[in-house]
Amino acid sequence: MSSSEAKFDLPHSHPLLIVISGPSGVGKDTVIQYMMERGMPFHFVVTATTRPVRPDEVHGRDYWFVSKEEFARMIEADELIEYAMVYGDYKGIPKQQVREALSSGKDVVLRIDVQGAETIRKLASGALLIFITTNSEEELVRRLETRKTETLEELKLRIATARKELQRIGAFDYVIVNHDFHLDDTVAAIRSIIDAEHHRVEPRVVSL
Amino acid sequence: MSSSEAKFDLPHSHPLLIVISGPSGVGKDTVIQYMMERGMPFHFVVTATTRPVRPDEVHGRDYWFVSKEEFARMIEADELIEYAMVYGDYKGIPKQQVREALSSGKDVVLRIDVQGAETIRKLASGALLIFITTNSEEELVRRLETRKTETLEELKLRIATARKELQRIGAFDYVIVNHDFHLDDTVAAIRSIIDAEHHRVEPRVVSL
Repeated sequence: MSSSEAKFDLPHSHPLLIVISGPSGVGKDTVIQYMMERGMPFHFVVTATTRPVRPDEVHGRDYWFVSKEEFARMIEADELIEYAMVYGDYKGIPKQQVREALSSGKDVVLRIDVQGAETIRKLASGALLIFITTNSEEELVRRLETRKTETLEELKLRIATARKELQRIGAFDYVIVNHDFHLDDTVAAIRSIIDAEHHRVEPRVVSL
Repeated sequence: MSSSEAKFDLPHSHPLLIVISGPSGVGKDTVIQYMMERGMPFHFVVTATTRPVRPDEVHGRDYWFVSKEEFARMIEADELIEYAMVYGDYKGIPKQQVREALSSGKDVVLRIDVQGAETIRKLASGALLIFITTNSEEELVRRLETRKTETLEELKLRIATARKELQRIGAFDYVIVNHDFHLDDTVAAIRSIIDAEHHRVEPRVVSL
C-alpha cells in the first residue's frame, strides 16, 4: 500500500482506563499478576497502602507499602486520585502515574475495591469498569480461608461486605466469574474486553 | 464445587444478534467464511438473493439464490425480516432462521449491507452492529477490481455508495479495519467483541 493514500476518517482508539474490581478474595491480584506475566500491553498503577505486606508481596510491584504519616502527606499534597479506608487500612491511587501512562497512549489498569471503582466512574465517566466475582458465596469463603490472612472476625466482615458489593454490580460495564482453576479464561475475557473496547465506534474518553 | 451451593444472582448472558456489515468489497463474505471454518459457535443466517451466483459460491451456504418470483412470494408471506434492492438485485433475511437460532440460545450472525444494518437496528435495538472497512478508498477499489465481478460502471457506483456508507458509521457499535493479508486479526477482533459482549453487565436483549 502506498503511504500517500488518503485514509478513511475512522474513529480513533483512545487509551483506556481499566478498573479491575470485585469483592475481597475473588482473585483480583492473581488475575493482574497473570496479565502482567503474559506481557499484556498496559500500565499497571501500583496502589499505595498502609496495610502490612503479605507473604510473596513485593514493595513497588504489588503495592507501595507506606506509613500512615507518608499516606497523610500524599493526601495533603493532592497526589491521589482516590483513596479510602479499607478494612482499617488506607489505600489510594497515585494520580501522576495514571496521567503519565494515559498521555503516553498506554492503557492503564487499576485494581480497586468496589466503592473506589464507583468513585473512579464519577471522576472519569469514560473509565472501563470490570467486576470480578466468584460463582457463589461459599466459593468466596473458601478462597478467603485458603489465604489465611484474615481472622474469623475479619472474614465475616469481608463476606458481609461482598454481599453488599454484589448489589453494586449495575454500576459496572462487564462482569467476569473467576472460576477455580480457570484463570486462563478470566484473563482471556479481560483481553477480549480490552480488544473490543478499542474497536468501539464511540471510544471512551478519559480525562483526569 | 457442590451443586447445592447458592449461586450469586449475576447478569445472564443472552444470545446475540450480530450484524456484519460494511461497503461492498471490504471482504464481509471472506470474513464470515473464515469464522465458520474456525468453528466459531454461531448460527449464520443465509441471505436470500435474486442475484446470479458467483464462481465458488454455493447455494444454501453463501446465499439462497432464488428467482424474482420466489422472492416476491417470500415478501408476500412476510417471511423476511428485512429486504432491499441492492445494485439491482433483491436481498433479504429469512425471519424464521433468526428466531429459531436465537431461541435455541445460539448467537446469530447476519451479513447485510449498511442500509440493511440500520434497518435491523430499528427492528431490534439490542442488535450488535459491526462495521468492516478497508483503510482507504484506494484499497477498496483494488479489492473490487481483483474480484472482477463488476463492470466499470458498477464499480464506480459501488465506490460512490461506499463513500456514503462510511458516513453512516456512527450508527454502528464497532468498527474493524480489514487489512490486506490480516484476516486473522479481523476475525480475532470479531471474536473479542462477541466474547466481551457476553460479559456485559447489561446484556443486549433482542426480540424480533
